[in-house]
Amino acid sequence: MAEPHQSTTIRFGILGCADIARKVSRAILHSPNSTLYAIGSRSIEKARTYAAANGFPSSTKIYGSYDEVLDDPEVDALYVPLPTSLHLYWVVRAAEKKKHILVEKPPALNVKELDVILKACQSNGVQFMDGTMWMHHPRTKIMGEFLRDSQRFGQLKAVQSSFTFSADEDFLENDIRVKPDLDALGALGDAGWYCIRASLWAANYELPKYVTALRFPIKNSAGVLLSCDASLHWEDGKVATFHCSFLSNLTMDITAIGTKGTLQVNDFIIPYKEVDASFSTVSEAWFTDKDLEWNQKPSEHIVTTDLTQEALMVKEFSALVYGIKHHGLAPEKKWPTISRKTQLVIDAVVASIDKGFEPVEVNY
Amino acid sequence: MAEPHQSTTIRFGILGCADIARKVSRAILHSPNSTLYAIGSRSIEKARTYAAANGFPSSTKIYGSYDEVLDDPEVDALYVPLPTSLHLYWVVRAAEKKKHILVEKPPALNVKELDVILKACQSNGVQFMDGTMWMHHPRTKIMGEFLRDSQRFGQLKAVQSSFTFSADEDFLENDIRVKPDLDALGALGDAGWYCIRASLWAANYELPKYVTALRFPIKNSAGVLLSCDASLHWEDGKVATFHCSFLSNLTMDITAIGTKGTLQVNDFIIPYKEVDASFSTVSEAWFTDKDLEWNQKPSEHIVTTDLTQEALMVKEFSALVYGIKHHGLAPEKKWPTISRKTQLVIDAVVASIDKGFEPVEVNY
Repeated sequence: MAEPHQSTTIRFGILGCADIARKVSRAILHSPNSTLYAIGSRSIEKARTYAAANGFPSSTKIYGSYDEVLDDPEVDALYVPLPTSLHLYWVVRAAEKKKHILVEKPPALNVKELDVILKACQSNGVQFMDGTMWMHHPRTKIMGEFLRDSQRFGQLKAVQSSFTFSADEDFLENDIRVKPDLDALGALGDAGWYCIRASLWAANYELPKYVTALRFPIKNSAGVLLSCDASLHWEDGKVATFHCSFLSNLTMDITAIGTKGTLQVNDFIIPYKEVDASFSTVSEAWFTDKDLEWNQKPSEHIVTTDLTQEALMVKEFSALVYGIKHHGLAPEKKWPTISRKTQLVIDAVVASIDKGFEPVEVNY
Repeated sequence: MAEPHQSTTIRFGILGCADIARKVSRAILHSPNSTLYAIGSRSIEKARTYAAANGFPSSTKIYGSYDEVLDDPEVDALYVPLPTSLHLYWVVRAAEKKKHILVEKPPALNVKELDVILKACQSNGVQFMDGTMWMHHPRTKIMGEFLRDSQRFGQLKAVQSSFTFSADEDFLENDIRVKPDLDALGALGDAGWYCIRASLWAANYELPKYVTALRFPIKNSAGVLLSCDASLHWEDGKVATFHCSFLSNLTMDITAIGTKGTLQVNDFIIPYKEVDASFSTVSEAWFTDKDLEWNQKPSEHIVTTDLTQEALMVKEFSALVYGIKHHGLAPEKKWPTISRKTQLVIDAVVASIDKGFEPVEVNY
């Protein structure tokens, strides 16, 4: 008979040996309700080396193909860090094998593909979640409470966000994120995904009515976006703009401005320090009577956490899988819904670029 | 014979009794090389009450018209806080009377008007400066040194800025900044001016090639802008976006992103505390090897000042006037040049809105 520990622990299989999988693999080990069970690569040697180098338990099954991971009946869930162009095939195939899916963002090249993926997950009763890890930091929840507070924040009016990092020569030449056949959405799908999610999150996931790409995005010679800006416009007049780029210094800011308050965070995707991440808020700011100073400085809020946001993501995902597996619960719809909304905006930015930077209407 | 003190002190006349003049009047008194000499209003009673309420020296000449201030031969310089629609007439008239001009922003309704103003100043040999006070805070100089540092900041790639404040009902009904016949540029001319100046400042005053207004600006029933966004695009691919509004909580942010560094300041127009204003920088930021944290937190820099930025503005202006008056120096061209560049971008935003949000080419 299996140990109780084993039956309550969600067993992950990992497809491929991507760099980002190192971080999420550790998170799977650190999360109290999950474990690493298998890894598959097209090269079994590569999988073996990778597992050893990244502290996988010695019991981890090492497979020389993705299909063997999918066929292992002991694998509950898959973490899929494959290039975006491979998500459609492998996630659908995995869902059909009843594997729950934690997939790196962007989850698909476009919403048409994503809908096939989500339909496969739904019809097979498996949980879907994308790997937008900052959603799971406890700071995000507390910032969200400020944004939903009609007294402290009021109604959202504007969001500015950015995510940029300075990719080196090797990245700009060889990374999957600059390759049209792998992660064709480039900086938009990678860095822009986070800004779009931040904008939707600030708007309590209300979809904008129109999305407009700003002119003069920067593409590489293969046509993949290296840097771009876009604006999201809601029917009530609120607006979000973002800048995403592979070409400048690491920066990840959100400024969300409401009628009564302002939220600022400068490390929203990966906190400066994981254990004590901070943000700042100010409400009903005004000038002193001589107009020389503010009536207050923004307050800094520090949110501590024992587990990394990646481990918290895995923990949340695994708890949902556990509920489905052991209590017959339905998959949580929040996660596929916000993935789809984010992807819809990605699609609209691409469509706006293709249409000469005209606004594109977004319909759910 | 005049006291030496009197001859080295620049004597200001003030046109009108605007709210903002209270702050600059104090600055004229606090600046070591200037004094308040006269104030004129269409109502001499109003001028008298205003002078008494705002601590003007008892020696201040009180006039019942603007022309009397202009005709007073003891007045060296004028501070002009009149509604923008009156700048053309009064500044040109004052320049013709050889008065040096410190004028509130926006200096004109459009660059065509501003060129008439600047020509009048130039042909009469008087100094021109607009009242963009944050340019004169010592913090601005130190932030600028970071932005020009090829090692710490690299090349500028993107600027996001915002200036918003929550105007009350009375403002939205009655302030000159919502009136088409007074400050017809509304939030763009008032709040947007600062963001545009910040964008140009970050770009070392290189003009963008194109300016595009973002769609769906908010106007009042008289057609005056209450909230808008725009983007500035330079030929080398760098981009600035800004959001300006009368409709949300007080916010004034700049994030300037270079290839190697990032500058952040959240109170760029009026510091939280005048005496110790801060900003933060980070250079060559990256992740720790586990990708869970940053290799560094941004550094906070605190810049102290004895004089307010308004007093420093007056001091700088008065020193230039002194040089012209006593040493036969030519007026400093930097100030009219950056006023004109800022106004050119304002004009381009307006033109882009008028042209259905098409990009508008900016030519000096």
